[in-house]
Amino acid sequence: MTASADVSYDPRTGRTNGEVPASSDDEVAAVVAAAAACAAEVAATPPTERARWAGAVADALEATSDELVDLADAETALGRPRLEGEVARAAGQLRFYAGVAVEGSYLGATIDHAEGANPMLARINVPRGPVAVFGASNFPFAFSVLGNDTAAALAAGCPVVVKGHPAHPLLSRRLGALATEALRAAGAPDGTFGIVHGFDAGVRLVEGPQITAVAFTGSQRAGMALRDAAERRPVPIPVFAEMGTVNPVVVTGAAAGTRLAEIAAGFVGSFTLGAGQFCTKPGLMLAPHGSGAAEAVADALRDAAPQGWSLTEGIADAARTGIEELVDAGAEVVAQVDGPEDGWSVASTVLSVPVEALQPGSRLLEECFGPVALVAEYEDTEALARTIESLQGTLAAAVMADGASDPDLPGVLAQLTTKAGRVTVGDFPTGVAYTWAQHHGGPWPATSDPTATSVGAAALSRFTRPVVFQSAPEEALPAPLRDDNPWRIPRRVDGLLVLP
Amino acid sequence: MTASADVSYDPRTGRTNGEVPASSDDEVAAVVAAAAACAAEVAATPPTERARWAGAVADALEATSDELVDLADAETALGRPRLEGEVARAAGQLRFYAGVAVEGSYLGATIDHAEGANPMLARINVPRGPVAVFGASNFPFAFSVLGNDTAAALAAGCPVVVKGHPAHPLLSRRLGALATEALRAAGAPDGTFGIVHGFDAGVRLVEGPQITAVAFTGSQRAGMALRDAAERRPVPIPVFAEMGTVNPVVVTGAAAGTRLAEIAAGFVGSFTLGAGQFCTKPGLMLAPHGSGAAEAVADALRDAAPQGWSLTEGIADAARTGIEELVDAGAEVVAQVDGPEDGWSVASTVLSVPVEALQPGSRLLEECFGPVALVAEYEDTEALARTIESLQGTLAAAVMADGASDPDLPGVLAQLTTKAGRVTVGDFPTGVAYTWAQHHGGPWPATSDPTATSVGAAALSRFTRPVVFQSAPEEALPAPLRDDNPWRIPRRVDGLLVLP
Repeated sequence: MTASADVSYDPRTGRTNGEVPASSDDEVAAVVAAAAACAAEVAATPPTERARWAGAVADALEATSDELVDLADAETALGRPRLEGEVARAAGQLRFYAGVAVEGSYLGATIDHAEGANPMLARINVPRGPVAVFGASNFPFAFSVLGNDTAAALAAGCPVVVKGHPAHPLLSRRLGALATEALRAAGAPDGTFGIVHGFDAGVRLVEGPQITAVAFTGSQRAGMALRDAAERRPVPIPVFAEMGTVNPVVVTGAAAGTRLAEIAAGFVGSFTLGAGQFCTKPGLMLAPHGSGAAEAVADALRDAAPQGWSLTEGIADAARTGIEELVDAGAEVVAQVDGPEDGWSVASTVLSVPVEALQPGSRLLEECFGPVALVAEYEDTEALARTIESLQGTLAAAVMADGASDPDLPGVLAQLTTKAGRVTVGDFPTGVAYTWAQHHGGPWPATSDPTATSVGAAALSRFTRPVVFQSAPEEALPAPLRDDNPWRIPRRVDGLLVLP
Repeated sequence: MTASADVSYDPRTGRTNGEVPASSDDEVAAVVAAAAACAAEVAATPPTERARWAGAVADALEATSDELVDLADAETALGRPRLEGEVARAAGQLRFYAGVAVEGSYLGATIDHAEGANPMLARINVPRGPVAVFGASNFPFAFSVLGNDTAAALAAGCPVVVKGHPAHPLLSRRLGALATEALRAAGAPDGTFGIVHGFDAGVRLVEGPQITAVAFTGSQRAGMALRDAAERRPVPIPVFAEMGTVNPVVVTGAAAGTRLAEIAAGFVGSFTLGAGQFCTKPGLMLAPHGSGAAEAVADALRDAAPQGWSLTEGIADAARTGIEELVDAGAEVVAQVDGPEDGWSVASTVLSVPVEALQPGSRLLEECFGPVALVAEYEDTEALARTIESLQGTLAAAVMADGASDPDLPGVLAQLTTKAGRVTVGDFPTGVAYTWAQHHGGPWPATSDPTATSVGAAALSRFTRPVVFQSAPEEALPAPLRDDNPWRIPRRVDGLLVLP
């Protein structure tokens, strides 16, 4: 085994599947240089043509689904049905983001004709340039090598260099080759997509002088480390880090009175999905005093008896440590269901905790990645409001109410919007649809930039920056700013939105 | 004199006008707490009502113009005509940003109805909360206490706390009182606007736990220091720093051949405007080899014989030091016109420099704030391209071409867009109109975030963050997301832009 290689393990057994050698510094520099060399050409390519490139990658994913799912299942143990769905989702995402670019609103084309002392001004969003993508362990297709970040950056006109994920290195390498080949066959310039492997290669990648932005999905520790590295560059660049959070679920008094068992079962289904390895896993339920919520969740957990593997030995170890830390911080285990006998897993665990212990700075308010959740009971709505105020920023938050007329709904919902990027009513937070309205981000520490989303149409805007042309002659303007609007996109002209 | 007071000086004489006592830590905490206490109310106030508040402040500015201009002229020596124009501009800006909010596109309202497995998602941009504003010395009305940042933040629904500027403390205090009174009379909640004074108060303000964002206009050193302070907070917040840059002017071969004297005169007018104290001052001209550009600019400077005072003694000292540094780095003074005999000033200065000296990291490529500019001659278009590649990011860049058919125009313009947030053709960069298309920002170090603009309609978006509601009942949604679109704003519904 090479010392610095990414070793692939089967979580079901702990045995190795093989390894992927780490990229050398020279290899990283060459991949970044190739991305930089084609950046102007990729940027100048119309979105319709880039959509053809993305479509080719999506087609290749679908055509290779069986092989890819086998590879992914051996490295992640997430199971074929889930992984088949993820391949389809990744292909759909590639096509969706490409379509968002073709629609053209992401360009922000804005034209003010000269008026009085004001000169003619015409603004457009241009691609930033080569983007580094660090994918997640828990979604080997939808949030990794060819996931949301890669799809959105390519759609926005940026070459992408991916850091292959050490939790699925063989799949990373295979996806990299598949994308490179599909893009080349579709006529994209060499360098449009590249991949590097190994921890050190990731550091070199962020330091790469031609890299203009970093997209990251993963833990707070890794995300903040990347951000610090990006800030230390001679020219700092943004790191759009989407990190794990607690994603609280609030049960109103009325809802607890009418359907607590149903809510408890849904909560268990959500926090144990994929062995709790979702950045949107609900890690905390706040239920009314005396509702017996902890017991209801404990019963539901024992009934469901979920089984699943941890993606890596490190994740399993960290979850076990996390449970110990939660207990040390004042929580009490009320139910546990052991995972599979062989391989890497952690017991699915429900803990109850006194609501007064949920204070700013407490470990209880930080994510515990894995099938682990806390339940706390609040005395009254004032106590609930104080507890919500104590919470960290979070990707998502849910309210379980008793219908639209539940008197507690408006207040809880309004307060949760101050803490979360997505608030759901009646739904658990785990599912994240890729649509026009989606926002997958939130106040710090959910994302390093709470305006940035890694899912949904707005995901493209992380990879562009505006430029305004002043008094430029028509023929010197980029196509989307010309009078005849050749790309047929929505624009704002002299202050008014004009549809094509 | 109080040790920590902001002392007001007359730049024409160096004598004091008076002083403004520094705010204590308790006073800063109280102002920030008042802003936080009203944040939810300000956020929930419809933009039409907030426009009434902004209009009241604009009316008060105009009604008090004479008094304000006297106060400003005594502290800045910028002269009555310029300052009268700036009061009118500041009032116009307040109304413009309020109108942008009323138009409603800044809300980004996006609704995806439930479809298949996808839930109903409805997204809107919500105000971040209390914003700290650090204005600039050089535009006491347009970019200070009641300038672009304050107007945009209020329009976006955020309470504002301003740090009064030490270069015009009496005016800062007067503007603060005027805004507070006008807002109260218009019915805005107490805390909607606040002001603090003194260096330490500025530090406390950025540390204020309820502050959610900082807007800054000024030097790179101060901007980066604020940014570092904001990053060290327990919860980091963004600092939108708009900092000074070199703003290069490229003269094509054809333009040099047909109208060099006219270009030289325009360049002098632009770089000596307001004694060179513009963040968009053109600090570097790149002209063709053998064009005699340096001599032409020197002649134009002697003809124009500009006179003006430095805003502060520190600015005058820094400009003199800057000229010495430029000479040490390889530039040669080719013309100087001394400033006024009394008070604070620096000689208007043209330097010539060999183009080979313009290398990354050189002092020659950094701003020298004041009436100072470099001229360099490039050998051919390849050498010009190499030189542009060496430049730092910049707020603006200009091309002086020989009409729309100048063969060098497209290439130079395209390359300048990689370095600048605004590229002008034929115009010098100093004027910054506040319109829908404007972008006043640029790649690092022009702004800490190259997507952020401090002028133009998009200035509001620095002060909002998106929230998406999932499966929320109609009656629990904010007004702009309800089916009947009560605010009559543009929205995206099921992927399609819908005009009201």
